[in-house]
Amino acid sequence: MSILSQAITESIQQALNSPKEFVPLHEPSFSGNESKYVQECIESTFVSSVGKFVDRFEKEIADYTRAKYAVAVVNGTAALHVTLLLAGVESGDEVLVPALSFVATANSIRYCGAVPHFVDSEERTLGMDPEALRNYLQSSSEQRDGICVNRNTGCPIRAIIPVHIFGHPCDLDGLLAIASDFNLALIEDAAESLGSTYQGQHTGTFGLLGTLSFNGNKTITTGGGGAILTDDPKLAKRAKHLTTTAKLPHRWEYLHDEVGYNYRMPNLNAALGCAQLEELPEFLASKRRLLGCYQEAFQSIPQVSLFAEPEGSRSNYWLQTLLLDDSVANQRDATLEATNSVGLMTRPVWKLLHKLAPYRDCPCTPLPVAESLERRIVNLPSSTGLV
Amino acid sequence: MSILSQAITESIQQALNSPKEFVPLHEPSFSGNESKYVQECIESTFVSSVGKFVDRFEKEIADYTRAKYAVAVVNGTAALHVTLLLAGVESGDEVLVPALSFVATANSIRYCGAVPHFVDSEERTLGMDPEALRNYLQSSSEQRDGICVNRNTGCPIRAIIPVHIFGHPCDLDGLLAIASDFNLALIEDAAESLGSTYQGQHTGTFGLLGTLSFNGNKTITTGGGGAILTDDPKLAKRAKHLTTTAKLPHRWEYLHDEVGYNYRMPNLNAALGCAQLEELPEFLASKRRLLGCYQEAFQSIPQVSLFAEPEGSRSNYWLQTLLLDDSVANQRDATLEATNSVGLMTRPVWKLLHKLAPYRDCPCTPLPVAESLERRIVNLPSSTGLV
Repeated sequence: MSILSQAITESIQQALNSPKEFVPLHEPSFSGNESKYVQECIESTFVSSVGKFVDRFEKEIADYTRAKYAVAVVNGTAALHVTLLLAGVESGDEVLVPALSFVATANSIRYCGAVPHFVDSEERTLGMDPEALRNYLQSSSEQRDGICVNRNTGCPIRAIIPVHIFGHPCDLDGLLAIASDFNLALIEDAAESLGSTYQGQHTGTFGLLGTLSFNGNKTITTGGGGAILTDDPKLAKRAKHLTTTAKLPHRWEYLHDEVGYNYRMPNLNAALGCAQLEELPEFLASKRRLLGCYQEAFQSIPQVSLFAEPEGSRSNYWLQTLLLDDSVANQRDATLEATNSVGLMTRPVWKLLHKLAPYRDCPCTPLPVAESLERRIVNLPSSTGLV
Repeated sequence: MSILSQAITESIQQALNSPKEFVPLHEPSFSGNESKYVQECIESTFVSSVGKFVDRFEKEIADYTRAKYAVAVVNGTAALHVTLLLAGVESGDEVLVPALSFVATANSIRYCGAVPHFVDSEERTLGMDPEALRNYLQSSSEQRDGICVNRNTGCPIRAIIPVHIFGHPCDLDGLLAIASDFNLALIEDAAESLGSTYQGQHTGTFGLLGTLSFNGNKTITTGGGGAILTDDPKLAKRAKHLTTTAKLPHRWEYLHDEVGYNYRMPNLNAALGCAQLEELPEFLASKRRLLGCYQEAFQSIPQVSLFAEPEGSRSNYWLQTLLLDDSVANQRDATLEATNSVGLMTRPVWKLLHKLAPYRDCPCTPLPVAESLERRIVNLPSSTGLV
C-alpha cells in the first residue's frame, strides 16, 4: 500500500466518522412512505403499466424539474432511446456524445442504428467542452441543406447529448449555442443529475428533450426506472405513444400505427418513486454535507481535490469525485485497491467509450482531457445519510 | 342489441353468478405473500437489478417449467428481442410468426432490423398451422448452404416463433419438425402460457429458447416482467450478459464487450413474482373451473363454443375464448358492444399483424384461418377467483 493510498483511505474513514465494515458506493435509503405507497399499490391491484402512482410520479417529476411534461419509462436507457427517435435520429446518423460517460449513452444511439461520435470533456464541469467542440465542428463538419455533415464520414451529425457527469451540470450555454449554430438537436442525459440546476433551472429541461434515471444506484430510485422530459406537447404525446406499444386509443380494437416499445414504468415502481421524491430535499442536503466532510478530511493531502460545482451550477453531488493530480495519477489503482480492501467501496470513472470493443471504430474528436480525467478520477462512497 | 348478443351477455352473467358492476378482462390477484416479500425487499435496500428475489424467482421459474435456465427480464418484449439476437437473427433476415398474435412478437423482430414473415393459424390450437406452413415453405423457399431462403425476397428465413395464443399450446411436434427440416431456429413465445403444457412438458422449453411474460394482465404478474428460458448453458450465460449491459465481471472497471441492454428485472418486481408463483396452482385451478362454468352457461347457444385445449395439451386458460360460428360472425361487434356496455369487459382478438401500418409490406403466407378467427373470436372475463 502506498503512502498516498493509505492517506486517502484514512481521509475517507475520517470523513465518514468510523464507518461500518462495508460502505457501498451508493445505496438507496427508504425511510419515508415507500412501504406504505407500495402496499397501497398492491391493494389497488394496479401494479402494472396503468395506475395512479405512474400519473402522480409523472406530475411530481414535472413539477419538481419544471419541465412541462414528464413521461415515466422502465429505465434511463429506454428514455434515451426514445428521445433519440423523437429527435429524428435515423440509421446512419451520427450523434455527438462525451467519450467520458456510462455505456448506455452510446448504446441508445446504436439502438437507432446510428453511430456515436465521441467528444472531449472539460475539467471545470467534467462534461462536454463547448470550445473544443466548436473548433472541431468548424474544421470537420459542413452544413448541407441545413444539415450538419461530418466531412470525414459524409454522414449527418443529427444530435448532441451532453451528460451531467456524476450530477454536475455541464456548460449548457456553450452547448446550446453549438446546437443552434450547427443545427443539432440537443438531448440532455440528466440520468445522474436529478436535483442539479444550471443558472437556477433544472438540468434536463434545456434541450429539445431530457432524460432521467431512477436506477437503484441513483439519488432516488424506483427499482428500475427513468423519465423523458420535454416542454413540447407533441413530443410528450409521442413519447407516451412510443413507450406504450404505439397503440391507438379504442374501446377494444388493437391498432398500432408504428413500431412501438414496451417501455412504460410499472405502477409498482412508480409507487416507490413517489415516496422517494418526498425525501429528495433531505437526500440533496445530506449529499452536500458529505462533500463538506470529504473536503475537510482531504485538506491535508495536497495532491488530491474534491470536485465541486462550477459557478452558476448547483450539483446534486450524486457521486463524490476525488481528482488525483497528474503527478499521482499512477496511484489510482493502488488507491482503489487500498480502499476496497478495507470495505470502503470506490471506483474509477467508466472506461472511455471509444476504447470499448463495440465502439472502437466510431468517429472521435481529440480526447486529451477525457483521457486525463479517466486516469485521475476516483469516486468515493456517496450514499445519502452517511453524514 | 341483437338476440344473440343479449343471450351471450346473459350467459356470461350466469357463468359468473351475479357479477360485480364492472368485471375486467383480466385483473391480478394478490392474496398471498406479495406485500410481505415486497416489504422484505424494500427493507433489504436491494430493490434494483441485483438481489435475492431475482435469483430466487429465476430458480423457481426454472424449477416450475423444468427449463434448465431462466433469466428474468423487464418484460416479454425484451425477452423476445434478446432471444432473437441469441438465435443469430440479423438485419435483413426474415422470421416466421403468426399473423394472429400480439404486436410485440413482430416488434421484437423489427428491433433486430429483421422482417416478420406472417403465417396462418389452425382452428384446432389457434396457433401456427404446421401443415399449411410446410406446404408453403416447400414451394416458396429453398436451402442455400444450409440456410432457408425466401425465393420471392431472396432473404434468409432465420427463425420461427410459434405463439401459444391465450395460453393454448400450439402443435409443437409439427413445428419442431419444420424447424429441423428447414434449418430454422425455433423460439417459443410462451408469454401467455405459463402453466400450459404440451405432451406433459411445459411450453417455452421445446425450442432453442422460450420467453414468458409477467405483465399485469398475465396469469401471474411482476408489475412488468418477463423471462428467457433455455436448456443451453452458453445461451443462458449470454442472455444474462446481454440483458445486463454486456458488462464483464471486474472489481471496479467498466468493461462492456458488445452492445448490451438494460433489460434486467428489478428485485422489487421479482419479489412480487415470488409471491405470485406460490399461488399459481390455485390460479390455474380457478381458470379451469371458470371454463367449466362458461361451457355450461353457453350450452344453450348453439352458434358459439368455448375454445378448449386440444388432446395432449393442457392449457392455462389465460384468456377464455368464445368462438362464434361463421354464420354469426357478423354479430361480433354487437356482442362486444352489448357486453362492454353492461360492464362485462370483452374484446376481440388483436388485429392481424399484417394489417397494421408498420407491417403492411411484410411477406405473408395465405391467411384464411387467421382471417376467419379474427372475425369470430371474443375473449371473455378471465381473472382468477371469478368462480
